[in-house]
Amino acid sequence: MQNMPRNTLTGFAADLGGTKIAAARIEQGVVAERLITPTDAAADPDAQIAAIRTLLDRLGHASGAPLGVAVAGRVDSAGSWHAVNRGTLPAILGFALEQALVRDLGAATCLNDAAAAALAEGLFGAGSRSNSFAYLTVSTGVGGGLVIANRLIASENGLAGHVGFVSSRHASGPCGSGRMATVESIAGGRGIAAAAAAAGHADTDARAVFAAAAKGQDWADRIIATSASAVATLIGDLTAILGLDTVAMGGSIGLAPGYIDRARAALAEEPALFRPRLVPATLGHDAPLIGALAAHLRKESP
Amino acid sequence: MQNMPRNTLTGFAADLGGTKIAAARIEQGVVAERLITPTDAAADPDAQIAAIRTLLDRLGHASGAPLGVAVAGRVDSAGSWHAVNRGTLPAILGFALEQALVRDLGAATCLNDAAAAALAEGLFGAGSRSNSFAYLTVSTGVGGGLVIANRLIASENGLAGHVGFVSSRHASGPCGSGRMATVESIAGGRGIAAAAAAAGHADTDARAVFAAAAKGQDWADRIIATSASAVATLIGDLTAILGLDTVAMGGSIGLAPGYIDRARAALAEEPALFRPRLVPATLGHDAPLIGALAAHLRKESP
Repeated sequence: MQNMPRNTLTGFAADLGGTKIAAARIEQGVVAERLITPTDAAADPDAQIAAIRTLLDRLGHASGAPLGVAVAGRVDSAGSWHAVNRGTLPAILGFALEQALVRDLGAATCLNDAAAAALAEGLFGAGSRSNSFAYLTVSTGVGGGLVIANRLIASENGLAGHVGFVSSRHASGPCGSGRMATVESIAGGRGIAAAAAAAGHADTDARAVFAAAAKGQDWADRIIATSASAVATLIGDLTAILGLDTVAMGGSIGLAPGYIDRARAALAEEPALFRPRLVPATLGHDAPLIGALAAHLRKESP
Repeated sequence: MQNMPRNTLTGFAADLGGTKIAAARIEQGVVAERLITPTDAAADPDAQIAAIRTLLDRLGHASGAPLGVAVAGRVDSAGSWHAVNRGTLPAILGFALEQALVRDLGAATCLNDAAAAALAEGLFGAGSRSNSFAYLTVSTGVGGGLVIANRLIASENGLAGHVGFVSSRHASGPCGSGRMATVESIAGGRGIAAAAAAAGHADTDARAVFAAAAKGQDWADRIIATSASAVATLIGDLTAILGLDTVAMGGSIGLAPGYIDRARAALAEEPALFRPRLVPATLGHDAPLIGALAAHLRKESP
């Protein structure tokens, strides 16, 4: 697919995550104005849409303006929104999100937030020179997206790109997806906190585990090393499957000081063929917004 | 991508595997004539090409006729051929195969054999109604290919589709790919034989393990169950990554009596979202031949 010049991206975008909703006015590929409000995770879909509308109104959105919406969870090809990990947004169980947004706002394209970020990084960020690219976000959970030959890999059920739910030989416990022993269950923030609790450090979140590791505490260091090893093995697995040349890492844990170096050290144990370039994501919080708008504009004029 | 009508496939194809070379004349999507010769696994690339030429000459191939060539190992985007698993075709270490075939035969497109079979099954076989399709072959090794929106997923290094080299939480030993604890190392014929040896049954190949399991021997049953479980977990993993709706199983082990039922039973333990339809491949030995010719014709008129 032809690449899309970044300066052709003008319109609006929203990003509904487990903790906050962001909305932006994007001009020629740049976030010109951004507004943020906390997510009411227990709210029903209508209330979530109302919150997005309020932000877009303040940004000057007019009905029918180009709009991309990135959300936590999966969005199927009919535009219906489903929670995958029931720990996040438990009230979202198959809601016709895209249909409702089009009705209320005149135009919209919805997709998973990590997939949107992957598209932005793949087209305009860390993967812009890659033909076989994956974006990974390591945060409370582990997500991602795949951009092959400048196309985002998508599927009818909206599951494509949920790479945190790949099984891991480093893991053994349950995962919010219902699968066993996934990368997310051992590498994500929830998994890190669970590992800390199992090591006798109850009520210790991922941030505190990183702080303990920075102070030289072995138990914390081992937990973070296991997280990074699981991510490195996932990168090797994705490379076997897709022949990746570049992987970009994002997320609060993925971009935490030292984490990418640990992942690179673990990846160094893989044979050369299974070691793509591993780099930090470059677009930060703009990625899902820019990617969602790019997905919308591509859909309108494929 | 638009689907390619099967009856537009007319030309020649060859399939160079670890044990035999097949070549065929294909007329309107059907193998009209097929010739087979044993592979000299230790032979150099020039000798392998000479063996293919001999078969094609006997089939009436004329210079410049459409020709697709499927080979064990990976073929990069420059048409160079590399062994991935050093146990198969050890003399193939980066040979300009496509260039040599074009020079000698006027036209040719080369790709991995399991990728070629995947393309054929995805367009014309078990995956013809699928949008997100994987083909798995479980044989001496484990291979496959991915057809998403009617396109074969490919990569510059030719590695895409080598799903047998995905790591597995059911495995622990080394793999011919150089990775540790892969699906191939526990699920393929070599892995089954190694597991039999570890269980005290030296010099017992996969066929003998299946025979022992059929006679009710527990040790053999456990080994086959582990192979099928590793394949089922791989299917769940590929589904998390690609949102698969259909997986077709081929290969001498994949199509052995009872094997697909064991894999389905193991897959039944996955959450519904991670359970695509699992069906036998339908094109048999024709698949790599038909897929290789389809890849050639698509490349010539994309």
